[in-house]
Amino acid sequence: MDVVNIVQKFSLFQEYWSPRIVGELNDSQVKLAKLKGEFVWHFHENEDEMFLVIRGKLCIKLRDRDLWINEGEFAVIPKKVEHCPVSDEEVWVMLIEPKSTLNTGEERNERTFEAQWI
Amino acid sequence: MDVVNIVQKFSLFQEYWSPRIVGELNDSQVKLAKLKGEFVWHFHENEDEMFLVIRGKLCIKLRDRDLWINEGEFAVIPKKVEHCPVSDEEVWVMLIEPKSTLNTGEERNERTFEAQWI
Repeated sequence: MDVVNIVQKFSLFQEYWSPRIVGELNDSQVKLAKLKGEFVWHFHENEDEMFLVIRGKLCIKLRDRDLWINEGEFAVIPKKVEHCPVSDEEVWVMLIEPKSTLNTGEERNERTFEAQWI
Repeated sequence: MDVVNIVQKFSLFQEYWSPRIVGELNDSQVKLAKLKGEFVWHFHENEDEMFLVIRGKLCIKLRDRDLWINEGEFAVIPKKVEHCPVSDEEVWVMLIEPKSTLNTGEERNERTFEAQWI
Protein backbone atom coordinates (compact mmCIF):
# COMPACT_ATOMS: atom_id res chain seq x y z
CA MET A 1 0.00 0.00 0.00
CA ASP A 2 2.20 2.78 -1.33
CA VAL A 3 1.65 6.49 -1.65
CA VAL A 4 2.13 7.50 -5.29
CA ASN A 5 3.44 10.96 -6.15
CA ILE A 6 2.04 11.72 -9.58
CA VAL A 7 4.62 14.29 -10.75
CA GLN A 8 7.47 12.08 -9.55
CA LYS A 9 6.08 9.16 -11.58
CA PHE A 10 5.83 11.38 -14.67
CA SER A 11 9.56 12.10 -14.31
CA LEU A 12 10.34 8.42 -14.91
CA PHE A 13 9.42 8.31 -18.60
CA GLN A 14 9.22 10.56 -21.61
CA GLU A 15 7.76 8.51 -24.48
CA TYR A 16 4.47 9.83 -25.79
CA TRP A 17 1.33 7.69 -26.13
CA SER A 18 2.84 5.00 -23.88
CA PRO A 19 0.71 4.63 -20.75
CA ARG A 20 2.43 3.59 -17.53
CA ILE A 21 0.50 1.84 -14.77
CA VAL A 22 0.83 3.42 -11.32
CA GLY A 23 -2.07 1.93 -9.41
CA GLU A 24 -4.80 -0.68 -9.35
CA LEU A 25 -8.18 -0.81 -7.67
CA ASN A 26 -10.97 -3.28 -8.14
CA ASP A 27 -11.06 -4.06 -11.89
CA SER A 28 -9.44 -0.76 -12.84
CA GLN A 29 -5.97 0.59 -13.29
CA VAL A 30 -4.56 4.07 -12.88
CA LYS A 31 -2.26 4.98 -15.73
CA LEU A 32 -0.17 8.02 -16.58
CA ALA A 33 0.53 9.11 -20.13
CA LYS A 34 2.35 11.96 -21.86
CA LEU A 35 0.61 12.96 -25.06
CA LYS A 36 1.73 15.17 -27.92
CA GLY A 37 0.57 15.29 -31.51
CA GLU A 38 -2.40 13.34 -32.82
CA PHE A 39 -3.36 9.78 -31.86
CA VAL A 40 -5.59 7.45 -33.87
CA TRP A 41 -9.35 7.30 -33.90
CA HIS A 42 -10.51 4.39 -31.78
CA PHE A 43 -13.17 3.24 -29.35
CA HIS A 44 -13.45 0.75 -26.51
CA GLU A 45 -16.22 -1.78 -26.89
CA ASN A 46 -16.72 -2.41 -23.16
CA GLU A 47 -14.74 0.18 -21.24
CA ASP A 48 -15.50 3.71 -20.12
CA GLU A 49 -12.29 5.72 -19.87
CA MET A 50 -11.54 8.66 -17.57
CA PHE A 51 -9.07 11.36 -18.65
CA LEU A 52 -7.82 13.65 -15.88
CA VAL A 53 -5.45 16.36 -17.08
CA ILE A 54 -2.53 16.89 -14.71
CA ARG A 55 -0.58 19.35 -16.84
CA GLY A 56 -1.41 21.20 -20.05
CA LYS A 57 -4.59 21.06 -22.07
CA LEU A 58 -6.01 18.13 -24.02
CA CYS A 59 -8.37 18.07 -26.95
CA ILE A 60 -10.35 14.88 -27.44
CA LYS A 61 -11.90 14.87 -30.86
CA LEU A 62 -15.33 13.27 -31.03
CA ARG A 63 -17.22 12.64 -34.24
CA ASP A 64 -19.57 15.54 -33.57
CA ARG A 65 -17.40 17.99 -31.60
CA ASP A 66 -14.13 18.67 -29.82
CA LEU A 67 -13.89 18.17 -26.06
CA TRP A 68 -11.32 20.44 -24.40
CA ILE A 69 -10.01 19.33 -21.02
CA ASN A 70 -7.85 21.79 -19.10
CA GLU A 71 -5.47 21.18 -16.21
CA GLY A 72 -7.46 20.14 -13.14
CA GLU A 73 -10.38 18.90 -15.21
CA PHE A 74 -11.55 15.46 -16.26
CA ALA A 75 -13.98 13.82 -18.63
CA VAL A 76 -15.24 10.28 -19.05
CA ILE A 77 -15.44 8.88 -22.58
CA PRO A 78 -18.15 6.22 -22.52
CA LYS A 79 -17.67 2.82 -24.08
CA LYS A 80 -18.36 2.59 -27.81
CA VAL A 81 -17.77 6.32 -28.39
CA GLU A 82 -15.16 7.01 -31.04
CA HIS A 83 -12.50 9.49 -29.98
CA CYS A 84 -9.10 10.78 -30.96
CA PRO A 85 -6.88 12.63 -28.45
CA VAL A 86 -4.86 15.51 -29.88
CA SER A 87 -2.48 18.05 -28.40
CA ASP A 88 -0.10 20.49 -30.03
CA GLU A 89 1.78 20.86 -26.76
CA GLU A 90 2.87 18.11 -24.39
CA VAL A 91 0.08 17.18 -22.00
CA TRP A 92 0.17 14.92 -18.95
CA VAL A 93 -2.89 12.78 -18.37
CA MET A 94 -4.03 10.38 -15.67
CA LEU A 95 -6.24 7.63 -17.05
CA ILE A 96 -8.57 5.44 -15.06
CA GLU A 97 -9.98 2.50 -16.97
CA PRO A 98 -10.52 -1.25 -16.71
CA LYS A 99 -7.40 -3.41 -16.75
CA SER A 100 -8.53 -4.84 -20.06
CA THR A 101 -8.31 -1.46 -21.85
CA LEU A 102 -5.89 -1.22 -24.76
CA ASN A 103 -4.74 2.27 -25.77
CA THR A 104 -5.86 1.75 -29.37
CA GLY A 105 -9.22 0.27 -28.42
CA GLU A 106 -10.51 -2.73 -30.34
CA GLU A 107 -7.79 -2.59 -32.96
CA ARG A 108 -4.12 -3.44 -32.64
CA ASN A 109 -1.91 -1.31 -34.83
CA GLU A 110 1.47 0.44 -34.82
CA ARG A 111 0.28 2.78 -32.04
CA THR A 112 -0.65 -0.08 -29.71
CA PHE A 113 1.37 -0.04 -26.48
CA GLU A 114 1.05 -2.59 -23.70
CA ALA A 115 0.93 -0.47 -20.57
CA GLN A 116 3.76 -1.17 -18.11
CA TRP A 117 4.01 -0.74 -14.36
CA ILE A 118 6.43 1.88 -13.11
CA MET B 1 -20.23 13.76 -21.68
CA ASP B 2 -19.23 16.80 -19.65
CA VAL B 3 -15.89 18.22 -18.69
CA VAL B 4 -15.67 18.48 -14.90
CA ASN B 5 -13.59 21.19 -13.27
CA ILE B 6 -12.56 19.78 -9.93
CA VAL B 7 -11.93 23.03 -8.05
CA GLN B 8 -15.19 24.49 -9.34
CA LYS B 9 -17.07 21.43 -8.04
CA PHE B 10 -15.41 21.80 -4.63
CA SER B 11 -16.80 25.36 -4.46
CA LEU B 12 -20.34 23.98 -4.49
CA PHE B 13 -20.33 22.47 -1.01
CA GLN B 14 -18.66 22.92 2.35
CA GLU B 15 -19.86 20.09 4.60
CA TYR B 16 -17.11 17.80 5.81
CA TRP B 17 -17.23 14.01 5.41
CA SER B 18 -20.04 14.27 2.87
CA PRO B 19 -18.89 12.89 -0.49
CA ARG B 20 -20.35 14.40 -3.66
CA ILE B 21 -20.49 12.38 -6.88
CA VAL B 22 -19.00 14.13 -9.92
CA GLY B 23 -18.46 11.29 -12.36
CA GLU B 24 -19.16 7.68 -13.18
CA LEU B 25 -17.26 5.12 -15.21
CA ASN B 26 -17.87 1.40 -15.49
CA ASP B 27 -18.85 0.24 -11.99
CA SER B 28 -17.07 3.11 -10.29
CA GLN B 29 -17.86 6.62 -9.22
CA VAL B 30 -15.69 9.68 -8.83
CA LYS B 31 -16.47 11.54 -5.63
CA LEU B 32 -15.16 14.70 -4.00
CA ALA B 33 -15.01 15.18 -0.26
CA LYS B 34 -13.79 17.84 2.13
CA LEU B 35 -12.35 16.33 5.28
CA LYS B 36 -11.41 17.88 8.60
CA GLY B 37 -11.03 16.29 12.01
CA GLU B 38 -11.21 12.57 12.61
CA PHE B 39 -13.54 10.11 10.91
CA VAL B 40 -14.48 6.65 12.22
CA TRP B 41 -12.58 3.42 11.84
CA HIS B 42 -14.14 1.33 9.08
CA PHE B 43 -13.42 -1.03 6.22
CA HIS B 44 -15.06 -2.00 2.95
CA GLU B 45 -15.71 -5.71 2.56
CA ASN B 46 -15.57 -5.75 -1.25
CA GLU B 47 -14.29 -2.40 -2.43
CA ASP B 48 -10.82 -0.98 -2.96
CA GLU B 49 -10.85 2.78 -2.49
CA MET B 50 -8.57 5.36 -4.11
CA PHE B 51 -7.77 8.62 -2.28
CA LEU B 52 -6.25 11.37 -4.43
CA VAL B 53 -5.40 14.53 -2.49
CA ILE B 54 -6.30 17.68 -4.43
CA ARG B 55 -5.53 20.19 -1.68
CA GLY B 56 -3.86 19.85 1.72
CA LYS B 57 -2.46 16.76 3.36
CA LEU B 58 -4.34 13.69 4.56
CA CYS B 59 -3.41 11.14 7.16
CA ILE B 60 -5.05 7.74 6.84
CA LYS B 61 -4.57 5.79 10.03
CA LEU B 62 -4.07 2.08 9.54
CA ARG B 63 -3.90 -0.43 12.36
CA ASP B 64 -0.12 -0.77 12.00
CA ARG B 65 0.95 2.68 10.75
CA ASP B 66 -0.08 6.10 9.48
CA LEU B 67 -0.25 6.75 5.75
CA TRP B 68 0.42 10.38 4.82
CA ILE B 69 -0.86 11.53 1.44
CA ASN B 70 0.21 14.97 0.25
CA GLU B 71 -1.29 17.18 -2.45
CA GLY B 72 -0.73 15.55 -5.84
CA GLU B 73 -0.41 12.08 -4.36
CA PHE B 74 -2.76 9.14 -4.10
CA ALA B 75 -3.05 5.80 -2.35
CA VAL B 76 -5.37 2.84 -2.73
CA ILE B 77 -6.80 1.28 0.43
CA PRO B 78 -7.53 -2.34 -0.40
CA LYS B 79 -10.79 -4.00 0.53
CA LYS B 80 -10.99 -5.39 4.07
CA VAL B 81 -8.27 -3.07 5.39
CA GLU B 82 -9.39 -1.04 8.39
CA HIS B 83 -8.65 2.65 8.07
CA CYS B 84 -9.51 5.99 9.63
CA PRO B 85 -8.90 9.26 7.75
CA VAL B 86 -7.75 12.17 9.90
CA SER B 87 -6.77 15.75 9.18
CA ASP B 88 -6.20 18.73 11.48
CA GLU B 89 -6.55 21.09 8.53
CA GLU B 90 -9.20 21.00 5.82
CA VAL B 91 -8.21 18.65 3.04
CA TRP B 92 -9.83 18.11 -0.36
CA VAL B 93 -9.92 14.57 -1.65
CA MET B 94 -11.02 12.88 -4.86
CA LEU B 95 -12.25 9.35 -4.25
CA ILE B 96 -12.61 6.65 -6.85
CA GLU B 97 -14.48 3.59 -5.68
CA PRO B 98 -17.30 1.23 -6.70
CA LYS B 99 -20.81 2.71 -6.75
CA SER B 100 -21.72 0.42 -3.89
CA THR B 101 -19.21 2.00 -1.50
CA LEU B 102 -20.61 3.60 1.64
CA ASN B 103 -18.42 6.17 3.40
CA THR B 104 -18.63 4.31 6.70
CA GLY B 105 -17.95 0.92 5.16
CA GLU B 106 -19.93 -2.07 6.36
CA GLU B 107 -21.57 -0.22 9.21
CA ARG B 108 -24.23 2.46 9.11
CA ASN B 109 -23.89 4.99 11.87
CA GLU B 110 -24.26 8.73 12.53
CA ARG B 111 -21.38 9.46 10.15
CA THR B 112 -23.02 7.64 7.23
CA PHE B 113 -23.74 9.95 4.30
CA GLU B 114 -25.39 8.90 1.07
CA ALA B 115 -23.25 10.47 -1.60
CA GLN B 116 -25.13 12.93 -3.84
CA TRP B 117 -24.51 14.06 -7.40
CA ILE B 118 -23.51 17.66 -7.89
